[in-house]
Amino acid sequence: MLIALAGGVGAARFLRGLIATTPPGDVLVIGNTGDDLRIHGLHVSPDLDSVSYTLAGLGDDERGWGLAGETWNVLGALDRLGEPSWFGLGDRDLATHLLRTRLLHEGQPLSAVTAELGRRLGVPVRLVPMTDDPVETRVEVDGPDGVEDLGFQEYWVGRKAADPVRRVRFAGVESARPAPGLLDAIAAADGIVICPSNPVVSIAPILAVPGIRDAIAAAGCRTVAISPIVGGAPVRGMADKLLPAWGAEVSAAGVAGLYAGLADVYVLDQVDAGQAAAVEALGLEAVVTQTIMTTVADAAALAKTAIERL
Amino acid sequence: MLIALAGGVGAARFLRGLIATTPPGDVLVIGNTGDDLRIHGLHVSPDLDSVSYTLAGLGDDERGWGLAGETWNVLGALDRLGEPSWFGLGDRDLATHLLRTRLLHEGQPLSAVTAELGRRLGVPVRLVPMTDDPVETRVEVDGPDGVEDLGFQEYWVGRKAADPVRRVRFAGVESARPAPGLLDAIAAADGIVICPSNPVVSIAPILAVPGIRDAIAAAGCRTVAISPIVGGAPVRGMADKLLPAWGAEVSAAGVAGLYAGLADVYVLDQVDAGQAAAVEALGLEAVVTQTIMTTVADAAALAKTAIERL
Repeated sequence: MLIALAGGVGAARFLRGLIATTPPGDVLVIGNTGDDLRIHGLHVSPDLDSVSYTLAGLGDDERGWGLAGETWNVLGALDRLGEPSWFGLGDRDLATHLLRTRLLHEGQPLSAVTAELGRRLGVPVRLVPMTDDPVETRVEVDGPDGVEDLGFQEYWVGRKAADPVRRVRFAGVESARPAPGLLDAIAAADGIVICPSNPVVSIAPILAVPGIRDAIAAAGCRTVAISPIVGGAPVRGMADKLLPAWGAEVSAAGVAGLYAGLADVYVLDQVDAGQAAAVEALGLEAVVTQTIMTTVADAAALAKTAIERL
Repeated sequence: MLIALAGGVGAARFLRGLIATTPPGDVLVIGNTGDDLRIHGLHVSPDLDSVSYTLAGLGDDERGWGLAGETWNVLGALDRLGEPSWFGLGDRDLATHLLRTRLLHEGQPLSAVTAELGRRLGVPVRLVPMTDDPVETRVEVDGPDGVEDLGFQEYWVGRKAADPVRRVRFAGVESARPAPGLLDAIAAADGIVICPSNPVVSIAPILAVPGIRDAIAAAGCRTVAISPIVGGAPVRGMADKLLPAWGAEVSAAGVAGLYAGLADVYVLDQVDAGQAAAVEALGLEAVVTQTIMTTVADAAALAKTAIERL
């Protein structure tokens, strides 16, 4: 079994390549839930859904996120009712959140609900949230009216990551337990992949769940991480705004530093070949290749290169 | 203040006429909540919404129910997820249910939530649910597999009222309290109108809330009821399937019998003029007029005739 630590859209693109080279049934994806939010009374898990929709073949490739054929009629009606509409919930997407919220209210843990949604959506891998417990990524910013403590989606979607970041923390993570079976799965894994996701708000929350980082470090298999930074900027997202506050440089080698002592191999883009030595100096084997994934074939080639080193 | 007891679509059509002849601010509508259901984790109040949408001018006149410009994309997605899709929730309609459900979960009583929704939708009358407590209209039927106890929407929308009805009851009504202020409003009313709604599942649940029937009977003003039965059949809905199990004939006079001792005046259609004597024999003043409401002007004329007798 291969285990992949995943955020949202970037991870989903990579995983689509991974399951083109590895039987999906042999892949267990640990999903980030620090970005989850409650809005309009619904439990929304953006990262779990990005992975699910993409791997089920339901994603909108052109827009790059959400479901294909999506419409926004409920959101329009909520807006007319005076409800917040900054978070883009599509009509088809809403069905997922309605079902998730109902099952959670009925007492099922998020991991069971995610598995059930995966079955119904046709997700070919096993997708497991990092924890069934509430963990909330909070971003402390210098806002227009002083220091503000924002939920991640508020910071990213609501405020478009415009405010300088002072600090990122994962509220509740100290008492969160890994989802059932996760630690055993990590211990028995044949290889672990850290997807090219935001290291601060996608991968770090997973690693912050007590037990997960230690389990990966102690696992009998090797771990490969793929750089989400190419040429000094994130391929997508706002990692460049967050890494400095997290004490890391916005570079392939800067992110490698966060995975030193945890990963064995670090895959970085050819444009960053000059940083390979710095990566090796951190005790990681550096692999230089094309990491930009324009097509599924690109993603498959990247995945193949990465897992060959496991 | 005029008080109107109302079910769903039929009442809404009548009330649209009433507010064309009476200032909407002088009208308080008591809405039936026995038909409310919880579906997809949402609290749906079909009768309250029919009245709200119609009186706010948001209704779909052609279809006769729901919102104008409605779409059904969430329902389609729920269906694809394997969720029940027999209850027709439109996308725009869903926004109402999301907001209602959220406010209820936050601890507001249904009457406060209904007032808030009314403000946001632009409902010109004061609309108050009969109670803030859960009351559930249950229909006991001879189903294909024996006796079944169905929720009202299951019976009506899900099974299309196909099964012979044995009994109708309002589960929980014994311990339901009238919504705050209702009894005082009834006591102070200048007139009370029983809308041409289903007497069994729209009006009877309201009257069954302990205190409401007595308050109407004791009110200083007069009460007028409008027959929902014309020519031996309901103008819309399934009252003909329910009245026999309720011990009443499917006729204008049959329904008048249910309101004897409560109403002072009974308005019946000209095609039922022959039943006026039977109505008078029940102690009600009979008023014969056109009760079919094809246009708002028809509804306004009917409302004018009815309230002139208060």
